[in-house]
Amino acid sequence: MPNDTLELAQTLIARRSFTPADDGCQQILIDHLEKLGFHIEKMRFGNVDNLWARRGNTTPLLCFAGHTDVVPTGPLEQWDSDPFIPTIREGRLYGRGAADMKSSLAAFITAIETFLAQHAQHQGSIALLITSDEEGVAIDGTAKVVETLKARGELLDYCIVGEPTCTDKLGDTIKNGRRGSLSGNLTIKGIQGHIAYPHLAKNPIHLVAPVIAELANTEWDQGNEFFPPTTWHISNINAGTGATNVIPGTLNLLFNFRFSTANTVEALTTKVHEILDKHGLDYELQWELSGKPYLTPKAELADAISAAITKVTAVEPQLSTSGGTSDGRFIADICSQVVEFGPRNATIHKLNEYVDVDDLEQLSRIYLLTMENLLSSEKETNQTHSDSFLDKLKKYFSFE
Amino acid sequence: MPNDTLELAQTLIARRSFTPADDGCQQILIDHLEKLGFHIEKMRFGNVDNLWARRGNTTPLLCFAGHTDVVPTGPLEQWDSDPFIPTIREGRLYGRGAADMKSSLAAFITAIETFLAQHAQHQGSIALLITSDEEGVAIDGTAKVVETLKARGELLDYCIVGEPTCTDKLGDTIKNGRRGSLSGNLTIKGIQGHIAYPHLAKNPIHLVAPVIAELANTEWDQGNEFFPPTTWHISNINAGTGATNVIPGTLNLLFNFRFSTANTVEALTTKVHEILDKHGLDYELQWELSGKPYLTPKAELADAISAAITKVTAVEPQLSTSGGTSDGRFIADICSQVVEFGPRNATIHKLNEYVDVDDLEQLSRIYLLTMENLLSSEKETNQTHSDSFLDKLKKYFSFE
Repeated sequence: MPNDTLELAQTLIARRSFTPADDGCQQILIDHLEKLGFHIEKMRFGNVDNLWARRGNTTPLLCFAGHTDVVPTGPLEQWDSDPFIPTIREGRLYGRGAADMKSSLAAFITAIETFLAQHAQHQGSIALLITSDEEGVAIDGTAKVVETLKARGELLDYCIVGEPTCTDKLGDTIKNGRRGSLSGNLTIKGIQGHIAYPHLAKNPIHLVAPVIAELANTEWDQGNEFFPPTTWHISNINAGTGATNVIPGTLNLLFNFRFSTANTVEALTTKVHEILDKHGLDYELQWELSGKPYLTPKAELADAISAAITKVTAVEPQLSTSGGTSDGRFIADICSQVVEFGPRNATIHKLNEYVDVDDLEQLSRIYLLTMENLLSSEKETNQTHSDSFLDKLKKYFSFE
Repeated sequence: MPNDTLELAQTLIARRSFTPADDGCQQILIDHLEKLGFHIEKMRFGNVDNLWARRGNTTPLLCFAGHTDVVPTGPLEQWDSDPFIPTIREGRLYGRGAADMKSSLAAFITAIETFLAQHAQHQGSIALLITSDEEGVAIDGTAKVVETLKARGELLDYCIVGEPTCTDKLGDTIKNGRRGSLSGNLTIKGIQGHIAYPHLAKNPIHLVAPVIAELANTEWDQGNEFFPPTTWHISNINAGTGATNVIPGTLNLLFNFRFSTANTVEALTTKVHEILDKHGLDYELQWELSGKPYLTPKAELADAISAAITKVTAVEPQLSTSGGTSDGRFIADICSQVVEFGPRNATIHKLNEYVDVDDLEQLSRIYLLTMENLLSSEKETNQTHSDSFLDKLKKYFSFE
């Protein structure tokens, strides 16, 4: 079945699952998973469809995680083909979600199908955690599923998030952690007045300037072995009435920390307040933690997927913690080893998103070999695919 | 005629002359001025009515300047009486324009009427320069009339602008100059990028912060005998896409100098560019000079009006150059002595604008005595009003 992954990816891409819509994608996965003996739990929170599917009750539990929702297409007329009509041109499969991340979902399924066909007697259990709200506000998605699993004590041992992680070629990057994201909404209070009488006013733009300069120059930490140093940046600053002769009474700015396990939320917020207070500012500051950092040190899972990648692609993958947040931040709460691996991310969220057709089967094989590295029973280890039919027969007759 | 000024002020306030509309105000003035033998020139530029009225061709030429337009009323329901139905309550005349500056226009007329009735043989000439666009963009108003007069070599010796200058009581403040106003529209260019990858972006908010801090701390000059030090303030600052995860590519800010005769446009602009360049910013900066500073040193006009004020009100007026710009900035171009004097400005541009009824006749008398101080012929000087009828008879029979 050399084209299964491609066919399934095409079927999924044809669904118009604009975040947070699933548009039937999860049912397509369910149809496959039920045939494989998975126990299906649909977890709908708010208007978000989530799927928790599990096969087996023993440990270790290896989970594949991902999302069926996609980002908007942008101007349709600028696509070379309809983003919801999966189209192959010059060895590439084009369509919204081709890279982020319907191909990974397809590869999950075909890898599991092959694995179960070849390793009926494997160790541990396999699960899928699928949401339709990763690209949106991500409140009723993976976070809620994780909460539910945690409440009933259902923990994961290994989790592979199928986000597109590779940059130049398939296999070059595994993410073994992500920085945290901490945001601040800061309002500086001054006194409004006529610009001709500045002694009667207090200009919040002038008051905040040296504070921004100091915050921008602050070294928050030096990072660590796995993470770059914490960064602090302002995304928006606004003050002024529009009139050119009025000193405004307030200034608003939004800033964001990307921080690592080398720092803490408490230390960062304390330091910011110290600097604001030192400058004697009258201010209001609301904090929002959108994700704590997580880190999976090099251990069984990272080793297993690295070995699989090298075997399939001959590429030595780099472990990386760069980039934005992902649902890995939520899963890390119930799983000590979380890695992210998927296709190249060069075209995600862009026009003419695509995945290389050749990468689809390679991705499926990487997930398959990773499962074999982690879940094969002792006697199966090092078997080649050509052994599989004989192996299945043997297992059939020695069913535990 | 003790109530003429009040009656004329009421007639003018009843006109709905929202800037730049005149709504017939100038015609009311013309009706009075024609009877007094003024030569009337209507100067309409664009949609702005202007009036140049002159009586006599000799020097010195004393001009009264002002405007018939008013600012919007604000919420009508918050006025205690209709802003266009002049209403007297507790010794105050309420209405839009009561203080800024229809009362001054009325006082000009009644002062001139009385002066001419008593001093038919005065020296020099009298003029009025009236616009209906002082509160608006002020492009087709006084500036254009001054341009026209300048082009034909018609210069003024003294000009009294009737803007409301007093703060606590009538007579406390004469403006003998105004600061200039120089504005900048500054765009700082950075590089837009994802906030999770700040090394690929260049944050214009961070780049500009130390520059704002330096500009805000710069001492531009120390002012001089007549002016406070130059001030520099930002009125508006805006950067950001709205999204909280994007470092913006550009930042825009609007700033404004209020500067005096102790500085120059060239020195200020040069210094700003030096600071921007020193910080290595990539920027665009558009300058707009909305008014050069002007100053009338203590001389005949200031002395004449000061003496008149003290005689009428027993108050010693202060010379001041504070406040925003006025049409004095244009007139100074063709007149070496310009002062501004009018009623209290506490309620101008506000709800329930008013002028004290008692101040109306006092204002008219101040303008009258100022004319006497500047234009009476030698032999008239120090005459009391009771001499006037006899004086007129004498002059009639000794007509030069």
